[in-house]
Amino acid sequence: MADKDFVKEIADIESDFAQWYTDVILKTNLVDYGPVKGTMIMRPYGYAIWEFIQSGLDKRIKETGHQNAYFPLFIPESFLQKEAEHVEGFAPEVARVTHIGQEPLAEALVVRPTSETIICHMYSRWIQSYRDLPVLINQWANIVRWEKTTRPFLRTSEFLWQEGHTVHATEEEAKEETLKMLEVYQLFLKEELAIPVLAGKKSQKEKFAGAQETYSIEAMMLDGKSLQAGTSHYLGQNFSKAFNIRFLDRDGTHKFAYQTSWGVTTRLIGALIMVHGDKRGLVLPPKVAPTQAIIIPIASKKPEVLKKCEEVLGLLKSLGIRAEIDQTDASPGWKFNEYEMKGVPIRIEIGPRDIQNGVATVSRRDTLTKTELKLDTIAQDIQVLLDAIQIDMYEKANNFLNSHITTVNNLKELEAAIQNNHFALSMWCGQSACEDLVKEKFQATSRNMPFDQTPCGDACAICGKEPKYKIYWGKAY
Amino acid sequence: MADKDFVKEIADIESDFAQWYTDVILKTNLVDYGPVKGTMIMRPYGYAIWEFIQSGLDKRIKETGHQNAYFPLFIPESFLQKEAEHVEGFAPEVARVTHIGQEPLAEALVVRPTSETIICHMYSRWIQSYRDLPVLINQWANIVRWEKTTRPFLRTSEFLWQEGHTVHATEEEAKEETLKMLEVYQLFLKEELAIPVLAGKKSQKEKFAGAQETYSIEAMMLDGKSLQAGTSHYLGQNFSKAFNIRFLDRDGTHKFAYQTSWGVTTRLIGALIMVHGDKRGLVLPPKVAPTQAIIIPIASKKPEVLKKCEEVLGLLKSLGIRAEIDQTDASPGWKFNEYEMKGVPIRIEIGPRDIQNGVATVSRRDTLTKTELKLDTIAQDIQVLLDAIQIDMYEKANNFLNSHITTVNNLKELEAAIQNNHFALSMWCGQSACEDLVKEKFQATSRNMPFDQTPCGDACAICGKEPKYKIYWGKAY
Repeated sequence: MADKDFVKEIADIESDFAQWYTDVILKTNLVDYGPVKGTMIMRPYGYAIWEFIQSGLDKRIKETGHQNAYFPLFIPESFLQKEAEHVEGFAPEVARVTHIGQEPLAEALVVRPTSETIICHMYSRWIQSYRDLPVLINQWANIVRWEKTTRPFLRTSEFLWQEGHTVHATEEEAKEETLKMLEVYQLFLKEELAIPVLAGKKSQKEKFAGAQETYSIEAMMLDGKSLQAGTSHYLGQNFSKAFNIRFLDRDGTHKFAYQTSWGVTTRLIGALIMVHGDKRGLVLPPKVAPTQAIIIPIASKKPEVLKKCEEVLGLLKSLGIRAEIDQTDASPGWKFNEYEMKGVPIRIEIGPRDIQNGVATVSRRDTLTKTELKLDTIAQDIQVLLDAIQIDMYEKANNFLNSHITTVNNLKELEAAIQNNHFALSMWCGQSACEDLVKEKFQATSRNMPFDQTPCGDACAICGKEPKYKIYWGKAY
Repeated sequence: MADKDFVKEIADIESDFAQWYTDVILKTNLVDYGPVKGTMIMRPYGYAIWEFIQSGLDKRIKETGHQNAYFPLFIPESFLQKEAEHVEGFAPEVARVTHIGQEPLAEALVVRPTSETIICHMYSRWIQSYRDLPVLINQWANIVRWEKTTRPFLRTSEFLWQEGHTVHATEEEAKEETLKMLEVYQLFLKEELAIPVLAGKKSQKEKFAGAQETYSIEAMMLDGKSLQAGTSHYLGQNFSKAFNIRFLDRDGTHKFAYQTSWGVTTRLIGALIMVHGDKRGLVLPPKVAPTQAIIIPIASKKPEVLKKCEEVLGLLKSLGIRAEIDQTDASPGWKFNEYEMKGVPIRIEIGPRDIQNGVATVSRRDTLTKTELKLDTIAQDIQVLLDAIQIDMYEKANNFLNSHITTVNNLKELEAAIQNNHFALSMWCGQSACEDLVKEKFQATSRNMPFDQTPCGDACAICGKEPKYKIYWGKAY
C-alpha cells in the first residue's frame, strides 16, 4: 500500500537518484534552500542529526587529547597570500568583506574558507618552546566557499564543520597524528553512522591546497558514486615556514614545527541519506536518529490505548531511548508512511487487540520486517533491536561497498567498472596525466590509495607503464 | 606570600579594575586578541567555559519545548530594509560582502548582526495554518557587529550566541513566551553561573531595534557597573507584517502572527569574571569550571605521593568531578598561584605527611580557606564542597548586589548613588528626556523596570513630575 502513495511523493530511487535525494531532504524537512545562492537552512530534523554527529565525534576528538577553541570568522586578505598553493586553491571562491556599513575597509577581509592561516598566525605567537608542544586544538565552525554547483549538505556556499589544527615538534609525530585522526573518523563513521569507508592517501593532484599529504575516507553512495567523507592532512612545514611557527628545541636550536589539519562537515548528513536510504525515503541509523522509536496508537480514541502507549513511552524513555507518540488525527496508514519517509528506525503499533494479547507490533525501518514484542519486556527488547539495527545497517552497507569494487587491469575494464557504478581498483603509474585521461573519458577521479598496497596487477591500468601505486577510481560527489 | 607575587602579574583590582580584567583574561589564557580589529580568539580554557554554558543552557531551552536549527550567515541586504527600526539600528555596523574573489556580487550580502530578517523570510514560507504554530526554534551561531569600542567577551566585532525565534497565534501566547525565556535565563544564571540578576522591562529608548518590548536581566559587576546579560523581546507583529508571516486561523481568516526573539552571548563569560573575580584572578563557579579540583603533589618525587594522587584522581573522576593532577616540575607555590589565578574551585595538596595522617589539605578558591579532608571519603566530601561553593558564590554575589542598590528620590541622590558605584532605584516619569539627562550628567542609563512596581517615591527622581514607573539606573558595560 505504501508504495503506491510514495510514487506520488518521492521520485523513484532507481531511475532518478538525484531527484529522489532532493525530494527526500525537502519532504522530510531536513533542510530548505536559503535565499542566497547555494545556501541552506538546516531545519530542526536535519540539525538534530548534526547535533548527534557533533556530540559523538566531539567526544572522540576530546578522548584523543584535543581541546576545542574558537578563532575569528574574518581573515585579513594578506594572510591567505602567505602560502602559495593555499591561496591558489581558495582565492577564487572566497567571500570578501569590503565595507562596514557604507565605509570601505582599508584591507578587505576574507570569510574563512578554512582556518589554517589565521590559526597559524596565532600559533606563531603562542609557541616558543618544545614545552609548548604538541598543540592539539579543534574548532567547530561555519565555513564559506562559493561553489559553482551546489546541493544541500553535499556542497553548499556555507557549511558547518570541525577543523583540527595541530602542531608537533617532529615530522614523525605529526604524521602519526594525521593517521590517528583518519582512524578516529573511520571508526566514528563505522560505529555511529553505520557507514563503511575506504581509507587511504590522496594523489598529489587531489590533495588539499597547502598540504604535503592528504588522507581521506571515501564512502560509496547507493548510485555507486564516491563521497569524500573526511580528510586528514599532513602539512609538513609548509605553514610553519609561511607563518614563522618556530620553537626552541631541547637541543637549544630553533626549529620550524610540523603540522596537521583534519575535518569533516555537514556533508556527512548527505552520506547518511545516500548510503542508507531506500525507495520510501530516509533510513537513519539509531545512534543519530532524532527519534529512535515512534509509537502509533491504533484506534487511538480508546483511552486504554493511549494509556498503554504512554506507559510504553515511559519505559522506553527510562532506558534513554528517544521515543515519541504520534497522537495526531491522521490515519495510521498516513503515519506509517510519514515515519518511514523520515527514517525512524522502529515503529511500535499498539491497538486494543495488542493490549488484550499483551503485545505490540514492532516494525524495523531498515528491513521493513514486522514482529510482535511482549509489552512486559518491550523496552529492553527495543534496546536490543536498536543495537541490532545499527550493526545490520553497517553490514548491509559494507556488503554493498564490497560488491561494488572491481579490480581492473586496463582502460576498457576501468570504463566498464565505472559505467557499472562500481569503484575501480587498479595499479597506477603515479602520473597525473593518467588521472586527467580518466577524468576526461569517464568523468571519474582517483579516490585514494589504500594502506594495503599489495599489487593487484603488473602495469598502470591507464597507460600500461610501470605501476607505482594501487588506487581506487570512481565518480564522485 | 601569594599576594606579593600577584602584584607583579595582575593589576590591582581595587584601583584599576579595567586593567585587572585585561590582565586576568590574557594571563589565564581565556582569550587572545585576533588580528582583525575587535575580534578575539577563545582559547581552550575560555572556550571550555563557553561549552559548559552552551550545554547547560541548551538543555533548558530544549526542556521548554524548543528545537535547534541553523540559518545562513549571509543575509541579502534588502531583507534588512524591510523593518524600519531594525535597519536603522543595525545598518551602520554591519559587515558587507561585496565580492566573491574578484567578482562583484549583484546584491551585497550582510553578515548577520542578528537573524530576525532571514528567519522571518523562511517562516513566511513554512507557516500557513494555525496547525503550524507555535514555531519554537533556537539557533547557536556567530554574529558580527562592528562596534567602535571593543573588549574581549564584553563587546567584540564577532561573538557567539544563541538566538531564539518563536512564532505564535496570539499576542498573549507570545508575551508569555517572552517572559518564560527571561525566566529561563534568570534561573540559568542563578543556578549555573551563580550570578544574581535584576529582571525587568527596558525603556522604549533602550529596547531592541524592531521590538515592541524588550526585557532584560542585568547583573552587577564588582565595580558597580551593570552588564546586560540577556534579553528577551516581544516583537508583536512588527516582523510578521514586514515579512508577511500570516496563518489561516481556526475561524477561517488570515492573521499576522506574533513573535518573540531572545538571546545570550559569550559576554556571559565577561560577567563570570567580573562578578566573582578577586585580586588573585578568576573565581569560577564549579558548574562551569573546566577543572573543578586540581591535585598538587607535595614532594612529588616520592612514588607513594604520586600514587596516592592518582588514586584520589580516580575516585574524583568516578564521581564525575572534573579533576586533574599537576605533575610538572614547577614549585608547589608557583602552582598554588597559577590555579588560584585560573579560578579552579578546589585545590587538593597531598604530601608524605598527609598520607601518613590519612588526610589531604583542601583549599577553597572562593573563600581562600583551608581544611583537612580524610582520604577515605575525600571524593564524596569534595562533591559536597563543590555544591556548597556553588551556593555560597551565589549568596556572596547576591549580597553584593543587594548592598549596592540605593533608592533615590532626586537628582542629587541619584548622582551620589552612581558615583558610589551603586545602582539607583527611582520613580520615573517615562520620558526619554530624563534618560538623556542622566546619561549626559552621570554617564548612566536606565537599566530596566522591575516586575514589582510598588512605588518607591512620589515623583520622577529626575524631573520631579508625575511618576509612571519604578526603574533601575546604572553605569553599564
